[in-house]
Amino acid sequence: MAIIPGEAIAAEVEMGADSSTVRATVVQASTIFYDTPATLDKAERLLAEAASYGSQLVVFPEAFVGGYPRGSTFGVTIGNRTEKGKEEFRKYYASAIDVPGPEVDRLAAMAGKYKVHLVIGVIERDGYTLYCTVLFFNSQGQYLGKHRKLMPTALERIIWGFGDGSTIPVFETPIGKIGAAICWENRMPLLRTAMYAKGIEIYCAPTADARPVWQASMTHIALEGGCFVLSSNQFCRRKDYPPPPEYVFTGTEDDLAPESVVCAGGSVIISPSGTILAGPNYEGEALLTADLDLGDIANEKFAFDVVGHYSRPEVLSLNVRDHPTRPVTFTSAKTEDSK
Amino acid sequence: MAIIPGEAIAAEVEMGADSSTVRATVVQASTIFYDTPATLDKAERLLAEAASYGSQLVVFPEAFVGGYPRGSTFGVTIGNRTEKGKEEFRKYYASAIDVPGPEVDRLAAMAGKYKVHLVIGVIERDGYTLYCTVLFFNSQGQYLGKHRKLMPTALERIIWGFGDGSTIPVFETPIGKIGAAICWENRMPLLRTAMYAKGIEIYCAPTADARPVWQASMTHIALEGGCFVLSSNQFCRRKDYPPPPEYVFTGTEDDLAPESVVCAGGSVIISPSGTILAGPNYEGEALLTADLDLGDIANEKFAFDVVGHYSRPEVLSLNVRDHPTRPVTFTSAKTEDSK
Amino acid sequence: MAIIPGEAIAAEVEMGADSSTVRATVVQASTIFYDTPATLDKAERLLAEAASYGSQLVVFPEAFVGGYPRGSTFGVTIGNRTEKGKEEFRKYYASAIDVPGPEVDRLAAMAGKYKVHLVIGVIERDGYTLYCTVLFFNSQGQYLGKHRKLMPTALERIIWGFGDGSTIPVFETPIGKIGAAICWENRMPLLRTAMYAKGIEIYCAPTADARPVWQASMTHIALEGGCFVLSSNQFCRRKDYPPPPEYVFTGTEDDLAPESVVCAGGSVIISPSGTILAGPNYEGEALLTADLDLGDIANEKFAFDVVGHYSRPEVLSLNVRDHPTRPVTFTSAKTEDSK
Amino acid sequence: MAIIPGEAIAAEVEMGADSSTVRATVVQASTIFYDTPATLDKAERLLAEAASYGSQLVVFPEAFVGGYPRGSTFGVTIGNRTEKGKEEFRKYYASAIDVPGPEVDRLAAMAGKYKVHLVIGVIERDGYTLYCTVLFFNSQGQYLGKHRKLMPTALERIIWGFGDGSTIPVFETPIGKIGAAICWENRMPLLRTAMYAKGIEIYCAPTADARPVWQASMTHIALEGGCFVLSSNQFCRRKDYPPPPEYVFTGTEDDLAPESVVCAGGSVIISPSGTILAGPNYEGEALLTADLDLGDIANEKFAFDVVGHYSRPEVLSLNVRDHPTRPVTFTSAKTEDSK
Amino acid sequence: MAIIPGEAIAAEVEMGADSSTVRATVVQASTIFYDTPATLDKAERLLAEAASYGSQLVVFPEAFVGGYPRGSTFGVTIGNRTEKGKEEFRKYYASAIDVPGPEVDRLAAMAGKYKVHLVIGVIERDGYTLYCTVLFFNSQGQYLGKHRKLMPTALERIIWGFGDGSTIPVFETPIGKIGAAICWENRMPLLRTAMYAKGIEIYCAPTADARPVWQASMTHIALEGGCFVLSSNQFCRRKDYPPPPEYVFTGTEDDLAPESVVCAGGSVIISPSGTILAGPNYEGEALLTADLDLGDIANEKFAFDVVGHYSRPEVLSLNVRDHPTRPVTFTSAKTEDSK
Amino acid sequence: MAIIPGEAIAAEVEMGADSSTVRATVVQASTIFYDTPATLDKAERLLAEAASYGSQLVVFPEAFVGGYPRGSTFGVTIGNRTEKGKEEFRKYYASAIDVPGPEVDRLAAMAGKYKVHLVIGVIERDGYTLYCTVLFFNSQGQYLGKHRKLMPTALERIIWGFGDGSTIPVFETPIGKIGAAICWENRMPLLRTAMYAKGIEIYCAPTADARPVWQASMTHIALEGGCFVLSSNQFCRRKDYPPPPEYVFTGTEDDLAPESVVCAGGSVIISPSGTILAGPNYEGEALLTADLDLGDIANEKFAFDVVGHYSRPEVLSLNVRDHPTRPVTFTSAKTEDSK
Repeated sequence: MAIIPGEAIAAEVEMGADSSTVRATVVQASTIFYDTPATLDKAERLLAEAASYGSQLVVFPEAFVGGYPRGSTFGVTIGNRTEKGKEEFRKYYASAIDVPGPEVDRLAAMAGKYKVHLVIGVIERDGYTLYCTVLFFNSQGQYLGKHRKLMPTALERIIWGFGDGSTIPVFETPIGKIGAAICWENRMPLLRTAMYAKGIEIYCAPTADARPVWQASMTHIALEGGCFVLSSNQFCRRKDYPPPPEYVFTGTEDDLAPESVVCAGGSVIISPSGTILAGPNYEGEALLTADLDLGDIANEKFAFDVVGHYSRPEVLSLNVRDHPTRPVTFTSAKTEDSK
Repeated sequence: MAIIPGEAIAAEVEMGADSSTVRATVVQASTIFYDTPATLDKAERLLAEAASYGSQLVVFPEAFVGGYPRGSTFGVTIGNRTEKGKEEFRKYYASAIDVPGPEVDRLAAMAGKYKVHLVIGVIERDGYTLYCTVLFFNSQGQYLGKHRKLMPTALERIIWGFGDGSTIPVFETPIGKIGAAICWENRMPLLRTAMYAKGIEIYCAPTADARPVWQASMTHIALEGGCFVLSSNQFCRRKDYPPPPEYVFTGTEDDLAPESVVCAGGSVIISPSGTILAGPNYEGEALLTADLDLGDIANEKFAFDVVGHYSRPEVLSLNVRDHPTRPVTFTSAKTEDSK
Repeated sequence: MAIIPGEAIAAEVEMGADSSTVRATVVQASTIFYDTPATLDKAERLLAEAASYGSQLVVFPEAFVGGYPRGSTFGVTIGNRTEKGKEEFRKYYASAIDVPGPEVDRLAAMAGKYKVHLVIGVIERDGYTLYCTVLFFNSQGQYLGKHRKLMPTALERIIWGFGDGSTIPVFETPIGKIGAAICWENRMPLLRTAMYAKGIEIYCAPTADARPVWQASMTHIALEGGCFVLSSNQFCRRKDYPPPPEYVFTGTEDDLAPESVVCAGGSVIISPSGTILAGPNYEGEALLTADLDLGDIANEKFAFDVVGHYSRPEVLSLNVRDHPTRPVTFTSAKTEDSK
Repeated sequence: MAIIPGEAIAAEVEMGADSSTVRATVVQASTIFYDTPATLDKAERLLAEAASYGSQLVVFPEAFVGGYPRGSTFGVTIGNRTEKGKEEFRKYYASAIDVPGPEVDRLAAMAGKYKVHLVIGVIERDGYTLYCTVLFFNSQGQYLGKHRKLMPTALERIIWGFGDGSTIPVFETPIGKIGAAICWENRMPLLRTAMYAKGIEIYCAPTADARPVWQASMTHIALEGGCFVLSSNQFCRRKDYPPPPEYVFTGTEDDLAPESVVCAGGSVIISPSGTILAGPNYEGEALLTADLDLGDIANEKFAFDVVGHYSRPEVLSLNVRDHPTRPVTFTSAKTEDSK
Repeated sequence: MAIIPGEAIAAEVEMGADSSTVRATVVQASTIFYDTPATLDKAERLLAEAASYGSQLVVFPEAFVGGYPRGSTFGVTIGNRTEKGKEEFRKYYASAIDVPGPEVDRLAAMAGKYKVHLVIGVIERDGYTLYCTVLFFNSQGQYLGKHRKLMPTALERIIWGFGDGSTIPVFETPIGKIGAAICWENRMPLLRTAMYAKGIEIYCAPTADARPVWQASMTHIALEGGCFVLSSNQFCRRKDYPPPPEYVFTGTEDDLAPESVVCAGGSVIISPSGTILAGPNYEGEALLTADLDLGDIANEKFAFDVVGHYSRPEVLSLNVRDHPTRPVTFTSAKTEDSK
Repeated sequence: MAIIPGEAIAAEVEMGADSSTVRATVVQASTIFYDTPATLDKAERLLAEAASYGSQLVVFPEAFVGGYPRGSTFGVTIGNRTEKGKEEFRKYYASAIDVPGPEVDRLAAMAGKYKVHLVIGVIERDGYTLYCTVLFFNSQGQYLGKHRKLMPTALERIIWGFGDGSTIPVFETPIGKIGAAICWENRMPLLRTAMYAKGIEIYCAPTADARPVWQASMTHIALEGGCFVLSSNQFCRRKDYPPPPEYVFTGTEDDLAPESVVCAGGSVIISPSGTILAGPNYEGEALLTADLDLGDIANEKFAFDVVGHYSRPEVLSLNVRDHPTRPVTFTSAKTEDSK
């Protein structure tokens, strides 16, 4: 695996000299599909490697644990659903993780062992509904919380539920305020504004979109939000998924060759001024690392503070309903809820 | 086309003798796919025929205008979307109708001409989002309002938006209180309860589900809600859709034979006591007609009134947020909104 | 007594191969009226027989212990009450059981002896009010708790009190999440939704309703809730009750012949997809057994998760007041209450 | 019809001399069963007669409009319900009135025409559930509000729903604070206490209980509450109900003779000191009239003020949940509700 | 002294045949004023006599030990207090007893000797405050506990303190659940409800109120609570108090003649259906005895269970603060309190 | 002046074949500073040229009329202001135009003459405040309305006032729905969302930002809004401003050479899929033309409709106060306002 250093780490000896600088790594790698334990092993190897370069923050792609079932349709057409598709979903469901649960415990332990902050995309299982979720851990091995994708895209809507306003967190950590928006959520201006309002400094964008235009959105968000943007995508080949007929890429004739690239990556790290600090990488699995000078944020916000001096709240105001919404609530749970 | 009389019309001479009896027809027929004007012509023919039998209420299936794109995937797989699928959607979008709009005016005129109440499933176009909608008209040719499907099923979620709480109407008409739930919405207990609370008497269930278990749900709803249930499904053969390659039934080898049944109907009319008054019909296109004795409702509610004496509101209470929800509101539109 | 095997037990040798399969038996049998000790003896014989077939869960009908006083009016007319009716109630009251109490201990011991989970309808005596209650026991002989019927039907309202929100339990057991709704409670959509929200997997429906339309509700609930439904009804003949004049079936001339069927059963076991696994049986007393593949639940919830991805909590939300409600509370009991 | 003057009206010439004295009449008369218009005509005649004696307040019995279906079972036995019973309920339902509605308008007009305050028991129809309700009107012909029976007795529970805490009104009028509890509600100590706390001065007790022990409760309530108690019961003979087989008194052989008394009255007016001012009358239909010296109230409360100096709120406190409870609420109705 | 047998003892030979029948005696007799030892002697004589008739329970009047200082003012007017009054109180204080203490021991011994349950009104001395208290003993000679009058009436408030929620006991004994309310406490609906909630079956009402309206309250309570009511009052003549000037009946000219009745009794025993089993006696000192068939309770509660099926806890709920309240608490005592 | 054709105009013969295609031109040119009549002459020449290429829509840069006073400080430092700066502002003020006013009439006439829709940046004078405004005209020579910059950037805040919510128009025209955001307004996510909600299809972005990162924002907006983005910037050299000392570029030593580029352009046209149709041009003054296929919009919104199916209004809702806000209002004007 290639290491792609960002330009900002030219002089490694300077590291740590300025307490406001954070070394961050974006992971570009593939899930080991349908094998969650092996995927967690791989996550640990990548984490260890990033930590060996001095990283304080490591961001994994969307659905890294649980997998992004690219090319699948789960046998669903309008008005129908095949038995094979049901079977596929059963396997996919089995690869997802409970939050909290043993896999979360393992991830927390990893973060603590390697002393890194960890942001990682997972497929969360809650009852019989799955969610595309990002988990947050601090460098002391504590699970901080989660973000659930608010709005799945296209076919994702048949496999994942919808998050609500209660899981749009921004965590204040010793290395800055961290949050995440997943894939095309990054195209939702009101969601981004909610995170800006929570003071996000290190904006993580785990994604599955490898198109070149993705880069424009990442740069725009850095400028708009006055924040560092860390976008992490999987780099996958056909062979990272089970072979047919167990797993079928729909719409391809004779399926794809094992080496075919099915997700080309494009992970990137961008500063608040729109400067690209590392990436984008479209070559293969990689760790992209950059040093984030948090002082740049104030520098940019002087000119444009999207929720501060450059807002017009008397004209434009966003309301975020951030209490949990549940189809059924039990009064006996009120005390617990209010925690 | 066969006419399937329900048992309650044995003695037609008695019709109208009791003002609390309503003759209702459920239409089981196919959209003329991708041809909205022709579909409206067909709707008018069916309406005229039902009216000639004395029907006061005619219920059409889900998506009768605009069409139910069974078997299509719109080229969407997880993480991808084909050009051909985009083209398909463009055509589907073109077949949808604005509400209000000229097609709505035509439907209203039909209802007035034939002096029937009309409940019909359409694909509604609102900006760039489509909705699976049911329109309501009275026998004087007035458009009463609409219900938008709250929760599309499976792949429908990529072609249709989600309704909100403001379009769950129950209309008080001279022939009773009428509302509708579409397809698997009928499986949502809280939605049904909202309609029961609005006093629904004639519960229309336009659907696209032709499985035998659908009948159990229809009977259950009649019992649970103490209302008449009128379920209307399309009866479609492969040939009712454009031939390949213009329209492809995904997942079928060499596509289907033109005569293949792709939606088997199963339309039915059930009384509040669970008695089947007409149908279910799985044979072909048909008009199913029955006389609804509205007095049966009080009879059944004596024993079980789901939102009255048989509720336990102090233990179980449902809250329905029925104001419109919009991503953006303009204060200048407030007065208009509050109408 | 006939044994009615469900289709799923064709190959008994395979039992236990899959840990997610549960063998369950629904008992269709009559109370020995006014003789609670003999009824408990009968319960034990039936339990032993079910256990000998490998059942891990046995469900008895509504009011199996204490009896369902079919055909009685307890001498009550609007505005009046006879002395004979008072005497009847005194006997009925004497047949009821305290919870906890010696009969509960005996039932717990049975469950432990035969190593089955036990769900059984009883008439509970609390002070001077009776409740129609279902008791739950695990296979280790522990009493788990109870469900009190929330809303008695029709004349039941003069002999049974009303449960509150604190006794709508769903118990997590090694064989799945188990709860119960009694008779027409199954027609209460908000109650069912509360149980769905608690994650019910094995939905027990002890009942006294033997009408054919009951089957529609059972199938609908299986689909709606994505759960297994086990409905258990008594099969009773006139002779299962004391002869007249001790016990009178009101409204029948010269009473009924001893062999007359007064409750025809109709017990049934249904899978989450609406497939009937055993029954319905309308022939006589019987044990109906089926193997429940719990994996079917996730399979169905992929398409429809009533409290998950297929809910619209921001539009429709149910509030369940599930703390005990008492006419009088004593502050000294607060600590105990909050357990 | 006999006029039964209370002792306090010995010298009619003194009437009106003291503004704190109120002349009140309790009506003891029968509904014209199944004929609501005729019953309203009868109500008007009785009202006119009472007004001619100078009455400022007239109290009618429980269910005077709509009727108290004594002796009926509506064909219900435990676990069963006859077709004939359903038909009976349909007729009973048809005799009930909507609130508000044309019959309420007529009653209001009567009160205004004769310039009396009017308290009258009716059967209220709300959707498909009936309630045993008392309506209140002032002498200017305004409808003030209603009380719904909180807890029906015995077989009443199958024909009437349950009121909630929002309809326990006490109205402040120019002739004093007036409220009502219906029949055995008067035996509910917490309900009475709620009304005492609202300051009730003229406590109306429309009833259907003609037993002698009823008198003890009326006297006790006058003492306990320090208020005037006006109990109004129907006096009915068998012939006031339709003859068999249209209407059957269950449990009587060969039915009853037309002249048989089926409800013996016992209407009474009692002062806060327990002094009987008029009645009880067990002879026939009658108007019982007495002058209520409101000054007696303070006199008695000096010694015993049940919600004042003689309460111990730090030990015993009653909580009344008096907001409406509904199984379903719509957010759009919030503004309306808060009126 | 006359013995007034209740109607239920006609056939004495049947006694004890039914274990649910309890023979109870209500004592109607006067204190020997200012002579506590003599009063205790008198109590023993009465107890022995009742026991000889087979009584299992004996109830004495309010303040039987210590005396009810009828007619006295203790020299208190608003804003003033005479020396003579102080002296009177000193004597009254001296006649009161400590609980526990030697008089309590003697009463316990009596109960054990005669094998009766004993309920007796005493004046309790606690520090420098007196309480109007009822003591409870079982037939094995054990002191069970006490009830302190919660709320003294009128002038009583200057000689007696106020009880709190910790002394409203209902004792479960072999002859039923027994409690007591003193005099006008019986007019407190919330206090009665607290005792109903504790399951009281034998409701003792030691009193000093001999007015005829007292009977109405006793009957009402029996009906309301579904319990037996045993009301015990003193029968006193002027001569039962010390002669003037030692003891003065204020407000009477030349005092009263020695034979004047100053408290007329009215003791009574009433069944749960409101049937008078013994008394009321207004003739003189007496023992009133009746057999209480405890089965009558369930019989009545079938129709009306004030804290069971006939309550509406979700609307009306009573909170009883039943822990001891003290003006000063010490932290070292906390552990004990919290038990 | 070079003409930079977008790739979409390869085959000019096809123009107009599809009514949903709009040919649009973005003007990249400099104001003639301090000479408004000459600037209007230049505008007309450019308009004529664009019209000669078949353009139906022409977009001019920010402040094209009135000028963007780059490099000036108007003599303002914190806490001070020079006389020379005041004089500069007087000249700048004189170059601005009233709206409506003669210059607006001239612009309208131009649009009508050349039959183009015109969007042009101007400096608007309203009393003594200037606004950075965009004016809209249709091809029939009608003035449609204006957008005032909501939030000026940095030093702009000392020369321009702030717009309010009443001037964020989107005009429905025969060539599509057109609106504009000026310069860094384009970085305001809530403002953009307001325009998306108004259905904008042709999003004009007159600007003064020539940095390369501007391109990222333009591409992002096209994707986010599913609209065409037309960004127009001035291309200015030092010589386009008056020479020093009349006009000074602050902070440059010895001022700049006349040919120095002080604003590098970067005008661009982008499709809803993020495809660049014309530009960006950094070479000099230019007209950039492209054909906009409006059908692309539905195509893209199928996958992402920012205010339709991809919004979550129940979680995130934007409120736009779009009525005019004025420091002083007069009641006599209320009627007009409320229109």
